[in-house]
Amino acid sequence: MTNRLGLHANVWVRDWTRDSCTLAVNRTAELGFDLIEISAPDPQALDIAFTARELERAGISANLSLGLDEACDISSGDPVRMAAGEARLREVVAAAAELGSTHVCGILHSAFRKYSEPPTAAGIAGAVEVLRRTGEEAGRHGITLGLEVVNRYESNVLNTAGQAVEFCHRIGLPNVKVHLDSYHMNIEEADAAQAIVATGADLGYFHLGESNRGYLGAGSVDFPRLFAALVRIGYDGPLVFESFSSTVVGQPLCGILGIWRNLWEDGGDLARHARQFIETQLKTAREIGDEARRSALP
Amino acid sequence: MTNRLGLHANVWVRDWTRDSCTLAVNRTAELGFDLIEISAPDPQALDIAFTARELERAGISANLSLGLDEACDISSGDPVRMAAGEARLREVVAAAAELGSTHVCGILHSAFRKYSEPPTAAGIAGAVEVLRRTGEEAGRHGITLGLEVVNRYESNVLNTAGQAVEFCHRIGLPNVKVHLDSYHMNIEEADAAQAIVATGADLGYFHLGESNRGYLGAGSVDFPRLFAALVRIGYDGPLVFESFSSTVVGQPLCGILGIWRNLWEDGGDLARHARQFIETQLKTAREIGDEARRSALP
Amino acid sequence: MTNRLGLHANVWVRDWTRDSCTLAVNRTAELGFDLIEISAPDPQALDIAFTARELERAGISANLSLGLDEACDISSGDPVRMAAGEARLREVVAAAAELGSTHVCGILHSAFRKYSEPPTAAGIAGAVEVLRRTGEEAGRHGITLGLEVVNRYESNVLNTAGQAVEFCHRIGLPNVKVHLDSYHMNIEEADAAQAIVATGADLGYFHLGESNRGYLGAGSVDFPRLFAALVRIGYDGPLVFESFSSTVVGQPLCGILGIWRNLWEDGGDLARHARQFIETQLKTAREIGDEARRSALP
Amino acid sequence: MTNRLGLHANVWVRDWTRDSCTLAVNRTAELGFDLIEISAPDPQALDIAFTARELERAGISANLSLGLDEACDISSGDPVRMAAGEARLREVVAAAAELGSTHVCGILHSAFRKYSEPPTAAGIAGAVEVLRRTGEEAGRHGITLGLEVVNRYESNVLNTAGQAVEFCHRIGLPNVKVHLDSYHMNIEEADAAQAIVATGADLGYFHLGESNRGYLGAGSVDFPRLFAALVRIGYDGPLVFESFSSTVVGQPLCGILGIWRNLWEDGGDLARHARQFIETQLKTAREIGDEARRSALP
Repeated sequence: MTNRLGLHANVWVRDWTRDSCTLAVNRTAELGFDLIEISAPDPQALDIAFTARELERAGISANLSLGLDEACDISSGDPVRMAAGEARLREVVAAAAELGSTHVCGILHSAFRKYSEPPTAAGIAGAVEVLRRTGEEAGRHGITLGLEVVNRYESNVLNTAGQAVEFCHRIGLPNVKVHLDSYHMNIEEADAAQAIVATGADLGYFHLGESNRGYLGAGSVDFPRLFAALVRIGYDGPLVFESFSSTVVGQPLCGILGIWRNLWEDGGDLARHARQFIETQLKTAREIGDEARRSALP
Repeated sequence: MTNRLGLHANVWVRDWTRDSCTLAVNRTAELGFDLIEISAPDPQALDIAFTARELERAGISANLSLGLDEACDISSGDPVRMAAGEARLREVVAAAAELGSTHVCGILHSAFRKYSEPPTAAGIAGAVEVLRRTGEEAGRHGITLGLEVVNRYESNVLNTAGQAVEFCHRIGLPNVKVHLDSYHMNIEEADAAQAIVATGADLGYFHLGESNRGYLGAGSVDFPRLFAALVRIGYDGPLVFESFSSTVVGQPLCGILGIWRNLWEDGGDLARHARQFIETQLKTAREIGDEARRSALP
Repeated sequence: MTNRLGLHANVWVRDWTRDSCTLAVNRTAELGFDLIEISAPDPQALDIAFTARELERAGISANLSLGLDEACDISSGDPVRMAAGEARLREVVAAAAELGSTHVCGILHSAFRKYSEPPTAAGIAGAVEVLRRTGEEAGRHGITLGLEVVNRYESNVLNTAGQAVEFCHRIGLPNVKVHLDSYHMNIEEADAAQAIVATGADLGYFHLGESNRGYLGAGSVDFPRLFAALVRIGYDGPLVFESFSSTVVGQPLCGILGIWRNLWEDGGDLARHARQFIETQLKTAREIGDEARRSALP
Repeated sequence: MTNRLGLHANVWVRDWTRDSCTLAVNRTAELGFDLIEISAPDPQALDIAFTARELERAGISANLSLGLDEACDISSGDPVRMAAGEARLREVVAAAAELGSTHVCGILHSAFRKYSEPPTAAGIAGAVEVLRRTGEEAGRHGITLGLEVVNRYESNVLNTAGQAVEFCHRIGLPNVKVHLDSYHMNIEEADAAQAIVATGADLGYFHLGESNRGYLGAGSVDFPRLFAALVRIGYDGPLVFESFSSTVVGQPLCGILGIWRNLWEDGGDLARHARQFIETQLKTAREIGDEARRSALP
């Protein structure tokens, strides 16, 4: 298996105290995942040295993800917020570098919120500039930025893979790539598998989320086709499972994400199933790809 | 075909001036739809007598739909907003009665907004009470209320068919039924077709919307299975196509719905395709149902 | 997991010598399957005592399956062939009883061949009579007969679940049940998942086969829906994986089954994947079923 | 719509008498199809001049299809049968030329039968030689040969698109192309849509058949994905609907095809639905393809 498999920390914990860190890192490693994705907390809430030690002890790595808040909206066209956003992004890249992360991902290109107005060309151009500078800085640490394509209720900038490819091409850096998420693709893409194929080598990060953000397979997402597409393009980046339940996640995140019911109570059962689901789907997708080889004429 | 087929007025127009009314009613009828669904406007903006004449002339009927606004949130537990909501609902029921409508539907049970807190038991109990009184009033006019199940970003009260069935049972009126929408089901239901089967006779209204609210079939929704389920339960109520593009819909609705790109420019092409798509799917689903009959042993 | 998971012996071996028996039983048990399905060989080729010891040692059980040949066609209306078929069926039931099998399954109702004429009412009535007597005998040993529904190229009698339900009802015994196979359903059923639901408590045996008889998931079968249907009806009988490749299967079976290419070379890799695939699908299907429980209103 | 839409004559008639010809041609044209596909009858049974007049009068064209019989098996390696097969193929090409056909298609590469042995390299090499000569002759009349990929029960030579591409490349003529059929692909291909994409410009003919050969949509075939693939590769050749019911088709074809039950009684209803189904699917698939255009960033 060439893809590193990851788990979002919110399956285990809602914050990143030392206890949360130890619990989440241990359980992620126990289930055989290669990495944990941590929602980048405020600098004072992230004990980088402790986290790095726990990761090393457990033998896994960590990536950081974030959604910019409104005050840091680099797509706003507002110089104050753009500067605040750039500072926030650099802070997270610096933390990621200290943690030895390979990726920083999420809604890095705009605010993570329900907008009420469409984006502007000037706002997008500004976001491109900020991300070019941030991407260059990230590149100096060997870090790839993944710009997450999310649904219309979480951003007004990047809702489809096609938009993200164009956006990344405007930035023009090899380490600023498209971050796709099956949960969001289920809402926005006309053909999610084809969107993966069209993204191709521009794909840098992938979130596996079910349509209702619960158990993989218990929803609308056509995972067999998505895995077949990922295998077809030779995607070898991280595959990170993301799921949210009010059992773990508290406010304000429940409110931001719109989590109004418990989709699961036992994160361990959920994650164990996810691990096996992903592994089985990958194996199946590879067999589909190998069929051609078996069809040779005598 | 026993189901009446309908079209949402937003495919043609963004408001309900006399010109808009004439245009929308004419084009809906021309394409062979049986009814038009109108977003219930403010009372002063709805010329009921004129609308009724246009409908009669064109030979189609109209249903009214609405989403309560925050000041009218009957799930808020706040007596002032509950009273305002009840007044608004009664006003729309009265207009529908004058128009000869058979259904009033939409987010009648809470506000149409992105909530940041989960619903409360008291708020839901209050909404049940208001809707019981409103439902009784609607019943006196032969009108069915359809309580629309929407995704987590549009309400925190009814996100799944199962919740809506329970909610309707609490109300306990034969003319207050579940209103399902394939767009929202695609996000929330673990198995949308099975949710339709489980709703069964409680289903009173059905919106056909694609996963990205564009052309039917050009998205994630597994329509063949949904139509098979609708046929299996013998659903004979309205089937109404809903689609939104910034080409027609302006602010504030674009902002509320999160419409950031044009999914189509030509509403006529869109609606003609939808009409044929629905008809073909219904016929196909009926053939699936008839297969059993053809499998008799000699 | 309440279903016993099984594997068809043809994944490992083409015959049932002592060496084949030991190999197939060991490898099936090693991979965590609960039972092995053996194509009932000629009586002289089946060392029942040896097989029983090997099964006991390995801690798994065995079921026997067969397809009647033309000389034993109990649907032929020909008394000679009917008598030969009844004798063959009784012989296999007797062997199964000695092995402690719970099920005898397969094309027990007609010949396993490409027919060129449709079945006759008299032929079918004769098959019903033979199977009633055989079923009574099987019942005395606690054995269930599973009548396999196969595609049009393998029998002209039972091609759909609906036909098989009617056929079993004509027999009228609680231990003569419908045996469905996803490979065949993919060809014949208008809606395979719904066919499982309609079969309900009449379902007694289930073969998991991909559309091209290769790796599960690498074909046309919509397994998530089939597993959801199996869970929905509370099916708790055997789930047996079946796959054929010319790597293992020789003549004449390759010719009978139409196996013209290698769909796999490594039966161990295939079976290990199948075991994990089935387990994951079952778990996923159960989570879909549990969603309703999680949708309670406050 | 750039693809010509066609209908197989067996939807209407089982033979090709003058009455059958008139009926089939008229009804095909009435439903708006562009062409009829006729199973090439024995030369004495085909009144070419009459058929040509009927076609011209009705304003449609005809293609001829056939499956070689065992005595004409050009993949047999037997010089006598190869010569008989080549003569038969040339006879059909000549008839097609007189009719003004653009395509001759079907199982041109081997016998249309249930084989009991795998193909041989020498047999395949012989078939390639015969088809190269036949293809050159066809090319002189502007006719394309479509080599149909069928399931394992109908031939042992070409069961997958991949095999057919390789086979056509061995022939090496621009007018000898791959003929795919969704009915057969449903059984043999690991990923039917991807097989279409991989065939690409080598695709020359396409049969639309449901998994049980009945109503389109009432079976296992994932038509939305297949149409999306056809549109993606820019396929602009014929799309021909094929369906068989014992209502129309008599012996020996029922026996050859394994048709044991009536999947429909009313060919007109079936074909009208097929016409609308195909048109709707094509339109939908084109909208999926157009989505990218709509995702441009501001």
